Amino acid sequence: MILYSYPMAPNPRRVRIFLAEKGIEVPIQDVDITTGENRQPDFMKKNPVGSIPVLELDDGTCISESVAICRYFEALHPEPPLFGTTPEEIAHIDMWLRRVELNVMSTVGQVWIHGSPLTAGLFDQITAAADFGRERAAMGFKLLDDQLADNEFIAGDTYTIADAVAHSTMDFATGLVAMTYDDSLVNLKRWHDMVCARPSAQA
Amino acid sequence: MILYSYPMAPNPRRVRIFLAEKGIEVPIQDVDITTGENRQPDFMKKNPVGSIPVLELDDGTCISESVAICRYFEALHPEPPLFGTTPEEIAHIDMWLRRVELNVMSTVGQVWIHGSPLTAGLFDQITAAADFGRERAAMGFKLLDDQLADNEFIAGDTYTIADAVAHSTMDFATGLVAMTYDDSLVNLKRWHDMVCARPSAQA
Repeated sequence: MILYSYPMAPNPRRVRIFLAEKGIEVPIQDVDITTGENRQPDFMKKNPVGSIPVLELDDGTCISESVAICRYFEALHPEPPLFGTTPEEIAHIDMWLRRVELNVMSTVGQVWIHGSPLTAGLFDQITAAADFGRERAAMGFKLLDDQLADNEFIAGDTYTIADAVAHSTMDFATGLVAMTYDDSLVNLKRWHDMVCARPSAQA
Repeated sequence: MILYSYPMAPNPRRVRIFLAEKGIEVPIQDVDITTGENRQPDFMKKNPVGSIPVLELDDGTCISESVAICRYFEALHPEPPLFGTTPEEIAHIDMWLRRVELNVMSTVGQVWIHGSPLTAGLFDQITAAADFGRERAAMGFKLLDDQLADNEFIAGDTYTIADAVAHSTMDFATGLVAMTYDDSLVNLKRWHDMVCARPSAQA
């Protein structure tokens, strides 16, 4: 089994954080997305979308999409459960995972694609799209802050996949994408500091 | 239990198609998103994001995000399994579900927001963002076509959640968003005609 990853990329990091939280060790091979190694024919056979992470099983089966890879490990190693166990927990955690992805990661991603000097050579950047993304991302940060006012973790009292994905996302937003969130979002700050202090933050 | 929905909206339709495929009946109440009923305080208490669908349970618990709602019903009523049962199936189906969402629905959504005359009054439309979405959506359609060349359904030999979401998405793209896909995509056309002929298409 090999996990194809890259240190700075936010989506493989979701999986690495998740694996650290589960206590699972998987051999990692880096794919240099800065030189387009992920767009070479050999890699596109593993994932026709050309994105990382990809998990290659010993029989050659490849699983891509970060959360799909996490679900694979959750099914193999149910403890500790990070996707919930009862119907209500499963739904509640998936709802928050999706809110993080749709309201935060996808909007931060718009800023990354259309507004970062680091990607200026890769995309026909649209300044107005970056502004649109920045405005939506601020709404996403506020959504998390409101939730974290009454909850220790994103989906309630315990650490879940929603925290792993939000952790990777917020580190990406405030790191590579050089975004900031409003000082008034003290709950988001408290949570962000907390997940950054967990051992899985080193993943 | 009440499912808050709206006939023309693609995301509640995912859930209605899924329920029809599972043979589950749930009382439906329409929320008129064209007049902003989903942005009123009473509804925002059910879902702070203000989107539909929302499933309200008898104890008042609300679950939003279409796929999270589907997972709730899958956990309550496992047969027929539409999210897979083995670790490999669960991961493979979730991978394709995410490919449909990230490569097709999100790009079609960009065209809807930035390029449709029907939404011109709702958003500060960015023509270049619509063009960017259209180009990416064409790549998403091709991705599905390639997969459907060797598979009857999106994730393999059987109907899954990935088909329900792709069905709703393709009907939305070719309906309200008035997009077309290239005539050469005969596998996508074959699949689209097939899911449109299933009883769940009436949902």
